[in-house]
Parts: sequence; C-alpha cells; structure tokens
Amino acid sequence: MKFGGTSMAGTERIRRVAGIVKRQQEAGHEVAVVVSAMAGETDRLVNFCREANALYDRAEYDVVVAAGEQITSGLLALHLQALGCKARSWLGWQLPVKTDDAHAAARIEDITSPELLASMAAGEIAVIPGFQGLDPAGRVTTLGRGGSDTSAVAVAAAVQADRCDIYTDVDGVYTTDPRIVAKARKLKYVTYEEMLELASVGSKVLQTRSVSLAMKEGVRVQVLSSFIDENAPPADSIPGTMIVSDEELDRILAESEEGQEMERQLITGIAADKNEAKVTLTRVADRPGAVAAIFGPLAEANINVDMIIQNIAKDKGETDVTFTCPQADLARTQALLEERKETIGYYRMIADSKVAKVSVVGVGMRSHAGVAATMFKALADRGINIQAISTSEIKVSVLIDSDEVELAVRVLHTAYELDAG
Amino acid sequence: MKFGGTSMAGTERIRRVAGIVKRQQEAGHEVAVVVSAMAGETDRLVNFCREANALYDRAEYDVVVAAGEQITSGLLALHLQALGCKARSWLGWQLPVKTDDAHAAARIEDITSPELLASMAAGEIAVIPGFQGLDPAGRVTTLGRGGSDTSAVAVAAAVQADRCDIYTDVDGVYTTDPRIVAKARKLKYVTYEEMLELASVGSKVLQTRSVSLAMKEGVRVQVLSSFIDENAPPADSIPGTMIVSDEELDRILAESEEGQEMERQLITGIAADKNEAKVTLTRVADRPGAVAAIFGPLAEANINVDMIIQNIAKDKGETDVTFTCPQADLARTQALLEERKETIGYYRMIADSKVAKVSVVGVGMRSHAGVAATMFKALADRGINIQAISTSEIKVSVLIDSDEVELAVRVLHTAYELDAG
Repeated sequence: MKFGGTSMAGTERIRRVAGIVKRQQEAGHEVAVVVSAMAGETDRLVNFCREANALYDRAEYDVVVAAGEQITSGLLALHLQALGCKARSWLGWQLPVKTDDAHAAARIEDITSPELLASMAAGEIAVIPGFQGLDPAGRVTTLGRGGSDTSAVAVAAAVQADRCDIYTDVDGVYTTDPRIVAKARKLKYVTYEEMLELASVGSKVLQTRSVSLAMKEGVRVQVLSSFIDENAPPADSIPGTMIVSDEELDRILAESEEGQEMERQLITGIAADKNEAKVTLTRVADRPGAVAAIFGPLAEANINVDMIIQNIAKDKGETDVTFTCPQADLARTQALLEERKETIGYYRMIADSKVAKVSVVGVGMRSHAGVAATMFKALADRGINIQAISTSEIKVSVLIDSDEVELAVRVLHTAYELDAG
Repeated sequence: MKFGGTSMAGTERIRRVAGIVKRQQEAGHEVAVVVSAMAGETDRLVNFCREANALYDRAEYDVVVAAGEQITSGLLALHLQALGCKARSWLGWQLPVKTDDAHAAARIEDITSPELLASMAAGEIAVIPGFQGLDPAGRVTTLGRGGSDTSAVAVAAAVQADRCDIYTDVDGVYTTDPRIVAKARKLKYVTYEEMLELASVGSKVLQTRSVSLAMKEGVRVQVLSSFIDENAPPADSIPGTMIVSDEELDRILAESEEGQEMERQLITGIAADKNEAKVTLTRVADRPGAVAAIFGPLAEANINVDMIIQNIAKDKGETDVTFTCPQADLARTQALLEERKETIGYYRMIADSKVAKVSVVGVGMRSHAGVAATMFKALADRGINIQAISTSEIKVSVLIDSDEVELAVRVLHTAYELDAG
C-alpha cells in the first residue's frame, strides 16, 4: 500500500490511513506501507536547500529532503500501534533500498531484506519511507520528485506482493479527464504499455518510472482513492483501476464471466497535453546534416523533442522543419537555435505555444487498422485542423490549436464509443 | 563546535553559523560541528508523536524526532559549501554513534570512525547531527532532550579534539545569574565538578550529562556566545568560559602570568533554584523503618528527594520529617504519601512551594574551613531564615523563603568577594 503526501498531511489524516491499513491486515494480508512526506514538507525542505546554496550539493540535498518521509514513516507506525497493530518503520538505509549514486534522481537497484520478510510474516506491518535509498558509498539518496510511487513498486517486487495499491486523490484511471468529459468512465483494467503512453501524454496519475518498473517486475498495481471510508470492510474486489500486463488482462477477461461478455475496447483512453510548444524553421537547406544540426544541440541540452515534420522540399533545395518540445523548454530551444542560425542556415524561426497534443491510446489498435483514420475523420467533421501527427504501436497523437482541445477530446471520446451510460 | 537550536533557526542564522565555522578552519583547525534541530522543530515532532499515541513506542518516536537534526546537518553542510568550504554531513547511523537501546534516553557507548578522521584530515568540515545515535539492533536512538551537548562532547572525545566549543545564547558561565546580580562576573575557568554542582542547583547552561562525559573523557569544553561577530578574526584566546579538570586549572594558573597573580577563588559561583518544594510530615513514629516507609515509595516513583531533616524526637517517640523535592513532582509526592498515611503513621502533611534553594559552589572549599559559617552569618545578618541545609564536598545549599532568594544571592555574592569592579 502506498499513500501520498495529501493522505499523510497531519495527525487526523495519518490516523485515517492507519485505519485503512489495519483493515487490510484484518482481511488476512501481510502488509507493507510506503509513505510520502506530509504535503508541503518536501517543498519546505527543498526551499531551505535552495536558500543555502543555489548550486546545492545533491548528496546533502538528499540528506535534508529524505527527512520528510522519515517523519511520516515513524508517525504511521505510531498510529498503527495506537490501533493495536504491530508495526515498525524501516528506513531506506535500514532495509536497505540500494540505489545508484545519482543523488536527487537515483534509481533503485536492489531491495533484498530477509529481516523485512520475517517481520511481515510475524504479523508486523512494515512502514517504509518512500523516495529514499542508500548509495554504494553508504550515503542517503532520493529518487526524484514523485519517487514514492517507484519505491512502492520496488518494495512490492521485493516482497513478491500480490498487489501494489497506490492510494491517490483520484479513484482510478479514466477513459479521459472527467473534468473535460462528464461521460468519462473509470477503467477497471489498463495495461502497463497503455499506462506509460497515457502518462507520457499528460495523464499524471502515476510517475512514469513506477509504471516501467512494475512492467519490468510484473507487479500488479492498483490505483485507488485514499478518500474511501476507512471503516468499510476491505474489498478484495477492485475499487480502483488495476494495471497489469497485456497477457494477464487477456487471461482475466477470458476467465471472468464479466470479461467473456465484455468485448475488449479498441481504445482505452484519450489524453490531452497542453504543455507542448511548436517551433518552425523556414527555408532550411535540404541537404544531408541539416536536420542533425537542428536536433543535435537540442538533444545535448536534454530538450525532449516529440513530433517532427519536414515538409517536402520546395524549389531551390529548401524545406520547412516543424517540431514540438515542452513549453517549459521553449525559451532555451529558441536561444539555442538562434545562436546556430548561421550553421543551420534557416530563414525564420516561428514559435507557437498555443498548441495542444491529443492522443488516443489502446493496445487494441495493434490488431485493428483504421484507428488513425477514425480519428482524422472525427476531427475533420468538426473542423478541427491537425497541425502534426505522431504515432506509436499503441498510440496516435495529433497537434491542434489549444482552444480546440476540449472539443477534440469530447468528439473522440464519442467516436471511439467510450461514453458511459 | 556545537550550535543549539536558536543558532540553527532558519536560513539566515545557519549562514551566520557557517561563517563562524569557516573562521575556525581558516585559523588552521580541523573542525567537526555538532548541530541541534531548528528551534521549535523538536517540539513540533514530539507533538505529532503524542497526537499519534499518548503511550508512544520510543523506538518510533526516535525515528520521528531524529529527523530535525538530520535536516540542519545537511543544511549547514550546504551553507559551508556555499562559502567555499569542503563539508559533509555524517548522520548518527553513518559514523556510527553507537548507543545502548534505551530509546528516547540513550547513552552513547562508542564513536569510532576512521572515515571521519580521514575526512577531517583532508580538510573536510564534518557536520554531525546532535541528539541521535544507533542502537545495537541497528535502529535510530536519541539521547533525550538537550542531548546535543552530550553528542558534541562525545564527538570531541572521539576525534581527540583540543577543545569542544559549545555556542549558546549566553556568553559563558557567570559567578551568578547576571539578571539578579549586576556585578556578576564571567568566569574564565570552571572545573567539571563545579559545573556539575552548578547544573544540579539550577544553572542550566549545559546538560549535566555532557559535563559528566567531558570529565570522564577529559574533554576541555568552552561555553561561548553564538551571537559573536562571525567576521571577527578567530580568537584562540578564550572569549567564553573554559571547563577543565581541577589539575589542569592548577597547571594553567601556575603557567600563566595572569594566573600567578590571580589568587584562586574560594567560591566559584552562587546558584539559586526556585523549582523546589518542601514537604513536612508531623508526628511520625520515631522507630526503625519509618523513614524507609516515606522515602522508599518516592524513590520507586523516580521522585528526586534532595534535602532531608529529621527533628529531634519529642515526647511519645514522635518526630517531624521535612524534605524537599522538585515542584513538578509535588502533586505526585502528596498523592503517594496520602495513600500511605496509615502505613507511615503521621499526623499531618504540610506542603510548601514558596521555598528556594541557594547554593555556593567552589572546589576551593575543600581546603578551606569556614565556608558554611560565612554563609550562615551573612544570611543571618540580613534576617534571612534558613529552613534546611545540605552540603557536598564542594557545595553548601540552604533552603529559604522564595521571596528572599534575590536578596540572599546578592548578599552572598558580596560576602564571598565575587563582585566585579
């Protein structure tokens, strides 16, 4: 079980969490709980570090910010004890959660803890601070913001958990954002690949790295709401959304009565991302190396370029090159390309932040043609202009005017027959 | 060097501390710094523990409260780096600071850290969170409130420091409380034994345990103000008060010109403690076992009885028994004795909180008779009534009416020729 910062913000909320955890133990489960710092605490600590030293040493930053999860793990153990449960905290260096030495953005390498397994087998609830680990030199590391989801999946893999329940402020993964489409449906199942694609296009339910790790380790992850009634009997049914492998989903659907009736959806979800920006360089020389001259420096600067369109070369061996990058990196991108105007040899640079990316995601499209065609037609019927297209095996994304994003999502949600009721 | 919570309370203050530390390094010293949590932080964390569970598990309490010093140690390392110093934090479990397993009140057993010595020898300033340690089972311990002074002395002993400088909100140890006696003088030297007696009678400059440890390990401790100018050149002279052994003080006085002129004072300081209460049981049976029936239960309840006076037996084999205990324990004391009224066999219990203990302390009194007589005469001359007396080898204490405590302290300060100027 994993609880985020909102769930851990203060005595009353931690008491609620303890009640939810206790119910799971009472249902006969051995339980390990991974916790975040209280909401706001990590920001407070990060701010102290920035004030100390703008170019802070990441090893010392880790020492400071890891304290937030240490506090909540001890407190949850105390709250569980107050409810009569046996419980103890296991800090990152105690288990240990072995990581590499990339401070502030470390990767978990191994969690092997016979003591943890013995303690859980003896009925003791293990409370583990998320986000923190131990590097090969014996120093504290942290996994980067949002790292507690990854900690939870790693712990679940280490204890060979039946399930990794991630309690959040939403009650599951939806076919699309319910704030945009009232008829959005909560998904009972979603595959790792779909979840990764949804995360990459703006559906920030889980940290991407935690989903990758769950896929690699075969951990069944459930996303569910922490605002459930902590006195309700624990449901072994699935109140949230279960994230599983493609194969397991096939098996589940084949075995359940419900599944046999249920036709597998072609499209699982629709996501919108308004954080993209579009850059066009006009009249770039249509010669070998021109594209490399543009995208090489951006890659070196860690700017993540997504869609790329190169128009058909016009007369005089010139072409227009358009691409998208995160809005947050737009200023840097423009500066880098401005500096290299001579080398690249373009005429004008045109930047546009008023764009959005809309994506349809579903493993079903692997075996079905026509998904993209349906998308293009549905958008064209409503007069929505497509500025760029990119595809992967289980995703089709289009770039459109950001004013039209809500309309596009609603139109596609209906077109792929995802509307509830 | 050790800095308390007031010195560590926020970015600006930690920056000041970093400046003071840097100056010591620039003066050619290898430096280890022990830090407390930010003022108020430990209270905040203790409060969370109490809210979680009134009868909290001390092992988990330690996990929670140790986080405060972890934060400040990382931050001070960052501030030192910002000033161009090499610095790193060493957490209690990293050094490690080995303690027993008495959680929340652990005792340091050993600090052996070749890595620490090597790091300091290489010019790296070691920043060490006070208050925290590691028990034999590998779990976090804390030393009890005020334990950072003890951490500092233990670290000083481990690295065989020339000096342990404890920065506080006073600039040294005075002959008496300067708020009571304007002519109080700051002491240049005080012995461990005197410091222990002063601490035991209400002069709370240092935690008693830290002084005991310094005495046992032969660590020279300096108490000095953290509100010095951090840009002043570092003084290897003694701006505060140096706490040393009796033998070392003799040597220092013999070797220094100043010392040869300076006659060693008979009395080092005068302390007042208003936190005492007096209890009298009247007409107690004057028989073997009566006193044990009174003080046995109090000892079991961890109530620290100080002065005891048994009046000469009157007719009928009865006597009055008077004793003092901390005011904070008075209610418990009364309840315990009320319960045992039959067993003890007394007539009335009279409690009085309006008392204070005034003590004169000095190793000089070992070799000089008449110290107590001077005290009694000086008080009698001003009409101050003595209600009880207790003595040790280097201390004489009297119990008086609390309204007369300031007068008594001033009278004695003059009588022992301690007044400045």
